[in-house]
This record gives sequence, C-alpha cells and structure tokens, in this order.
Amino acid sequence: MPQSSPHISRRFDQELTEVTKLFLTMGQSASDLVTYAMRSLIEGDLTLAEQVVMEDDAINQLEMLIDERILLLLAKRQPAARDLRLVVALSKGVVDVERIGDEAAKIAQMAQQIITTAHTYCHQEVWQLSNQVRLMLNSALIAFETQDAKAAFAVLQSAQDVDFEYQSATRALMTYVMADARTISQVIHLMWILRALERIGDHARNLAELIIYISCGTDVRHSDFSVVQSAINKSLLDGQKVQENGAI
Amino acid sequence: MPQSSPHISRRFDQELTEVTKLFLTMGQSASDLVTYAMRSLIEGDLTLAEQVVMEDDAINQLEMLIDERILLLLAKRQPAARDLRLVVALSKGVVDVERIGDEAAKIAQMAQQIITTAHTYCHQEVWQLSNQVRLMLNSALIAFETQDAKAAFAVLQSAQDVDFEYQSATRALMTYVMADARTISQVIHLMWILRALERIGDHARNLAELIIYISCGTDVRHSDFSVVQSAINKSLLDGQKVQENGAI
Repeated sequence: MPQSSPHISRRFDQELTEVTKLFLTMGQSASDLVTYAMRSLIEGDLTLAEQVVMEDDAINQLEMLIDERILLLLAKRQPAARDLRLVVALSKGVVDVERIGDEAAKIAQMAQQIITTAHTYCHQEVWQLSNQVRLMLNSALIAFETQDAKAAFAVLQSAQDVDFEYQSATRALMTYVMADARTISQVIHLMWILRALERIGDHARNLAELIIYISCGTDVRHSDFSVVQSAINKSLLDGQKVQENGAI
Repeated sequence: MPQSSPHISRRFDQELTEVTKLFLTMGQSASDLVTYAMRSLIEGDLTLAEQVVMEDDAINQLEMLIDERILLLLAKRQPAARDLRLVVALSKGVVDVERIGDEAAKIAQMAQQIITTAHTYCHQEVWQLSNQVRLMLNSALIAFETQDAKAAFAVLQSAQDVDFEYQSATRALMTYVMADARTISQVIHLMWILRALERIGDHARNLAELIIYISCGTDVRHSDFSVVQSAINKSLLDGQKVQENGAI
C-alpha cells in the first residue's frame, strides 16, 4: 500500500473530524428532541409536540449527509486501523441516532393523542424512566465525544436500571386499567411511550458499545460485563506501555 | 490509486461473495425464527418458544462474524463504486437482520407468557399481520439475493398494507379489554407482539432500501415513492445504454 503524503493525511484527519462533529451534532439534536417530546407530554403542549414531529426530518437529512461523507472517506482515503474503526462505527452509529429521533417523534405523536383525550398527561412512572434514559443518552454522547471507554462502560451498566424502571412502570400502568377499563386507550399510549424510551436506552447502549469498539478494538456486543471490563483494561494497559516506551 | 492485479481482484470477488452468502444465511435464519416464534404462539408450544429465544444468539454471533469480515475487506481490499456500496450496505443490513432475530425472540418470550396464563393463544388479527410481515421479509431477502431493485420497490410499497393491518389489529385488541378488563395482561402481551411484527416490517423495508442503494447508487431513505421510482428507472436506463454500447 502506498504511504500517504503528510498533506493527504492532514486532509483525511480534517474530513474525519468534520464527520465526527456532524455526528455529534446529530446526536445532540436527537437528544434535544427526546427532551422536547417529554416536555410536550408533561406540559400538555400540542405545539411543541408538533414541532418535534416536524424536526425529526432534519435528523433524517443529517443521517443521509453523514453517510454520503463516510462513503467518500472510504472510497478516497482508505482509512486503516483505529480510523477505519471510527468510520465504520460512525456508519453504524448514525442509524442509532436516527432511530432515537424517530422514537422522539413517536413519543410526541402519542403525546398529541393523550393531550387531546385525557386530563392527566403523564404519570410519575413515565417521567422517572424518561429521566434515566435521557441521562443514559447524554452520558453516551459525552463518552463518544471524549472517546472515553470507561464512561461508555458505565453507560452499559446503567442499562440494567432502565430495564428495572421500565418493568416497574409497565406494571404500575396496568393497575390503572384494572381499576378502570375506560383508561385503556390512554394507558396504551403511555405504554408506547415507555417502549419508545426503552428503545432510546437500547440505542444509547449501542452507541456505548461502539465507543468501546473504537477505543479498544474489541467488539463487545452480546458480551458479559467481565469481557467488556477485560477489553478496556487490556486497552488501557497497552496504551500505558506505548507511552512508557515513548512510542507515541 | 494502484490498479489491482487480476489475482487480487478475483480474491476480492470471492471474499465479497462469501460475506454476501453469510449475510443471506443470517437473513434466512432470522426469517425462520420469526416463523417459529409465531408457530409457538399459535400452537401453544412452550418448547419451541424456548428454542427461538436460545437460537437468537446464533444470529448475534453471525452478525459479529460478518462485521469482522467486512472490516477486513475494507482494510485490505479497498473496494470502490458498486462493491463499496455493497460492503457498506451489508454492514448496515446485518444490524437490521440482527434486530429481526431480537424481535423474534421477543415474540417467543411474549408467547411463553401468553401460553402459561391464557386459553386462547393468538387472535386472527395478530395472525394476519404476521403473514403479511413474513411475506414482506421473505420478498426483501429474495430481492437482496437477486439484487432486484424493482422487487425491492414492491417491498417498500407493501409496507403501507402492514401499517394498515397493524392499526386495525391494535384497535381490535383494545375492544377486548373494553369488554373485559381482566384480559388486559394478555392483550398487552399481544400488543407487544404486534409491535414486534411491525418492527420486523420496518427492518424489511430498510433492507429493501439498501438493495436499491446498491443497485442504483441512490440513497432512497426518507424519500417519496416517485423519487424511488425515478432512481430505479434511471438506473435501468443507464444499464441499457451500457449494454447497447457494448461497454460491459
């Protein structure tokens, strides 16, 4: 393989940084949409809910733009090693972020249904789950920006709390229907919101796995926490050795 | 860029064909899991449901293997043009197929809950939606194998029928709860199954979009049908011109 000139290499770095920035902007937009969707539900704000549904399209457009840039990077620059992992991870990650936008739009659509038919818009259980999921998503995005594998691992671990909260919220909502069958329609809408929030948590977990893949070079999907921990430890140790040998 | 030797090029073709075959095998396995999951529900077969949950892991492992092969292809062979689009599409597509396996496992888990608590396992509405979704998924997989953009477009169009069937099934299930609130637990499980089926339809649609992307070079996500139709027509016309000029 021919060695790249410093000029070409600099341009590659610049383009990769730009795509990564676009990805993080897209991630922040999706995260904001989730916040707005939940706010529209809690405050019974129909206009805000409509805005969320409309703004999801901007995220879709960003996904297509980033994928186009990634294809160009792969075709022209032929990245290798860590750079290649980053490019592949960005290509996978945009799908997750796009879906987060979709789920936010779904929450806003459910909010519209609930606001126009019910007096109580949101229940404590939904709110609690939403806080946990939004925290998880924000932590994943920060870990992506700083490429912090340890922080990404913490995101993976927090997925268990989200699962627990989701189960408990589902049970709580079902008791409302048992007490009064007429609440079924509203409860079903709230259950879809719970499910959307759970999915957002899943996507945040996927992002965290990608961060570990980029940083440590290990695909930790479908792996136990002990495997993830070992991969991170090994990577940190390797990094330390490189530093000690002055090979940076 | 240096020209590849015929030897290297042949090896690349071989490796790409192998990865594509692995992908199609994975797709067929996921499709089978959906069929088995639905059969376990309809026949009240707890053992089959357990098998589906366990076998989902084989699909997860295939995903990781395919992604590893894709990374090697990108690193060593530096594909271009249509080959690069195929590689990127395979990298995106495995995520969809893996999620189809996940949804099948979820259906099987819901089936386990329903079988152990209810007498009627499955309702007509759920069965109808499942048939439509399985048809859509199989058509998408065949279109991927034959790289048939027209057939992929037909898959996109059939997504509307699935949406209609999903809405109608959801409404039908809600009337059961209105009539007898004690059915809430079973109905919620059936609703999760409906939602899982709808998601499988979404993933089949994503696969169809990838086929059009590979064949025609146009990213048709988030596009109107008229745009998709134009992209396919243009691509067919270009192919015809190349043939007429004997440039193959």
